[in-house]
Amino acid sequence: MRILILGGDGYLGWPTALRFSARGHEVSVVDNFSRRRWHNEHSTDSLTPISTLGERIGTWNDISGAEIHSFVGNIEDGEFIDRVVAETEPDAIVHYGEQASAPYSMISRKHAVDTQYTNVIGTLNLLFSIRDRVPECHLVKLGTMGEYGTPNIDIEEGFIEIEHKGRRDVLPYPKLPGSLYHLSKVHDSHNIHFACRVWNLRATDLNQGVVYGIETDETMLDERLTTRFDYDEVFGTALNRFCVQAVIGHPLTVYGKGGQTRGFLNIRDTLQCVELAVDTPADCGEFRVFNQFTEQFSVSELAELVQRSAGELGYDVSIDHVPNPRVELEDHYYNARNTKLLDLGLQPHHLGQELVRSMLRTIERHKERVIERAIAPRTRWKPGRFDHQAAAELAPSP
Amino acid sequence: MRILILGGDGYLGWPTALRFSARGHEVSVVDNFSRRRWHNEHSTDSLTPISTLGERIGTWNDISGAEIHSFVGNIEDGEFIDRVVAETEPDAIVHYGEQASAPYSMISRKHAVDTQYTNVIGTLNLLFSIRDRVPECHLVKLGTMGEYGTPNIDIEEGFIEIEHKGRRDVLPYPKLPGSLYHLSKVHDSHNIHFACRVWNLRATDLNQGVVYGIETDETMLDERLTTRFDYDEVFGTALNRFCVQAVIGHPLTVYGKGGQTRGFLNIRDTLQCVELAVDTPADCGEFRVFNQFTEQFSVSELAELVQRSAGELGYDVSIDHVPNPRVELEDHYYNARNTKLLDLGLQPHHLGQELVRSMLRTIERHKERVIERAIAPRTRWKPGRFDHQAAAELAPSP
Repeated sequence: MRILILGGDGYLGWPTALRFSARGHEVSVVDNFSRRRWHNEHSTDSLTPISTLGERIGTWNDISGAEIHSFVGNIEDGEFIDRVVAETEPDAIVHYGEQASAPYSMISRKHAVDTQYTNVIGTLNLLFSIRDRVPECHLVKLGTMGEYGTPNIDIEEGFIEIEHKGRRDVLPYPKLPGSLYHLSKVHDSHNIHFACRVWNLRATDLNQGVVYGIETDETMLDERLTTRFDYDEVFGTALNRFCVQAVIGHPLTVYGKGGQTRGFLNIRDTLQCVELAVDTPADCGEFRVFNQFTEQFSVSELAELVQRSAGELGYDVSIDHVPNPRVELEDHYYNARNTKLLDLGLQPHHLGQELVRSMLRTIERHKERVIERAIAPRTRWKPGRFDHQAAAELAPSP
Repeated sequence: MRILILGGDGYLGWPTALRFSARGHEVSVVDNFSRRRWHNEHSTDSLTPISTLGERIGTWNDISGAEIHSFVGNIEDGEFIDRVVAETEPDAIVHYGEQASAPYSMISRKHAVDTQYTNVIGTLNLLFSIRDRVPECHLVKLGTMGEYGTPNIDIEEGFIEIEHKGRRDVLPYPKLPGSLYHLSKVHDSHNIHFACRVWNLRATDLNQGVVYGIETDETMLDERLTTRFDYDEVFGTALNRFCVQAVIGHPLTVYGKGGQTRGFLNIRDTLQCVELAVDTPADCGEFRVFNQFTEQFSVSELAELVQRSAGELGYDVSIDHVPNPRVELEDHYYNARNTKLLDLGLQPHHLGQELVRSMLRTIERHKERVIERAIAPRTRWKPGRFDHQAAAELAPSP
């Protein structure tokens, strides 16, 4: 198959490109290097040293003999993405090409606009290109479990049957997203659903949980194939932050009570899920939604897991509760369904002390690269507590 | 009160500005004249001759002694709208400042992007300005009944209580919008709801039906205060189209079967509803949703009403069913709730033959201004039947 991967230089995009290439597919990647640019502008970086996209592609070619084609540009530029789609004629497009950080979207008006513009308009451009160039192409779009928020009823996979005043319908599951980034994904989902309903396109929306882990079968083949590991307050996740804090001897900083519960999955399972989606495409006209996570944890459970795992490596780790920079429920019902990918054959890798210890050992190897000042939260959800100084420092270049 | 009206030069925005000014409020309007520009570019026009905004404001000042302040600019320009909000310090903002045509949004990728960019980013900018400048200000936002689509259950006002697997929650009503324009309003609703939840803003989303009628108490005072009447395929509504066709001796063109059912209201009731919303503001943190229509009709019922009303004026009118340029159900369940505004005291003006005859008489007065070539549908929802020639001719200037 011809597979086009948007965001193919990213944390998940690059390992995904390697996986499909290793399976013998013809892979092209698109990226605008926005994540690398953002880190450059703020003197932060991936903890793992990562090669340039050119070096990555060259290394992979040396190892596998396979070629990965690359296109550098912004999908907000409709002419650009249309040219790429017309040239590559993909059978499937895996779309990771979005601004993916909730804190980033909350820094300032500019960051919020940047996020919704990049994500919503980029995806809208893509839908038109699929419609006009490759209407049979299967769009596999990365959504997020954060689209649902934390409702007081079970979370279903994209749709819910509602009985109301004696009538029934199956309708899109209501959304209560928790940041302007998560909102951009909700907007995408509505736009893609429309394109399937009205233009007969086929799409799978993968509402992914929080991904952890660094290694995949292909990235382990050569150091130069390593994917990024972000731990800073803007692009890092709680588990990454905790692991880095354990290694540098800082208390683990739990935001608020720590009862915030979310879905999680291993990066290896992300690749499995995307492969399963591509291998079993949605029907024409179908907007298919999978909840892509394997386990649920609260933030406190993650902190305790890191504490125990680090303890076995000889670290004495304490846990601090710090004021929550976000506005979110810290103690809530959470039960999300995730059976559709399991039904397709997903074999989960569960999160245990062994995986955490392997993350800790990777961090130890790169300990001298840790930028400690980038870890503490500076981006706050509430305007009353808004830090204009921090926002100015974090502002993107014009 | 200080009231800021976005889109204050428009079909509803201008009469709304007059109404609040007549009531003694301090009114400012913002407009970028995008509707006038679009008509200029395509050699079409409002059927009713309309004055410039400056002439309108001057006439109103002559008649009432009241001043309406105006600001010319795009709300997609965050610096502009922020300056206006900071200068005017409004107690309420009535937001009509969006691209409001479904066909326009479906013409081409550029039109779709233009629509979602203008509407979503404009509203997002506004939310930040309210948060940072006037956090107590009440946002009264014009949404549309088209956000809901045509589900097989009753449509509630913004939220629905769902019982699911033994648990209950009140959640946002699921949305199935029928065009990329309607989607932009769904995105707005989600963004505004978030701003209320997280920033404690107060907002009322008026999910308005299709508005008809030309006259309000204030616009009738002087010809130079007349509001616009669009009947072309892009900005006109079915009822306006039918009335113009009746007068020029063209069969009424019903799209498809004509069973498409929607909510409708008189322009006088739009003003009543907006006044009721402003006079009874939402609480801080509340995202209040009203369904703003007074009656439901199918397209065929409208055609028959126009046929009967025109018959009494001596016109012999026939009804044609033409291929539907849209993708929509032409025969469906539709029962939408609209009691919240009635509970606040709305006194509906119902649609009857008298109102239609008065519209027909207005059209007769301006019959020589009818541009017949602009009436037939050229914008099609489906790519397979997409008319690239028409899209190119309709393309906005760069």
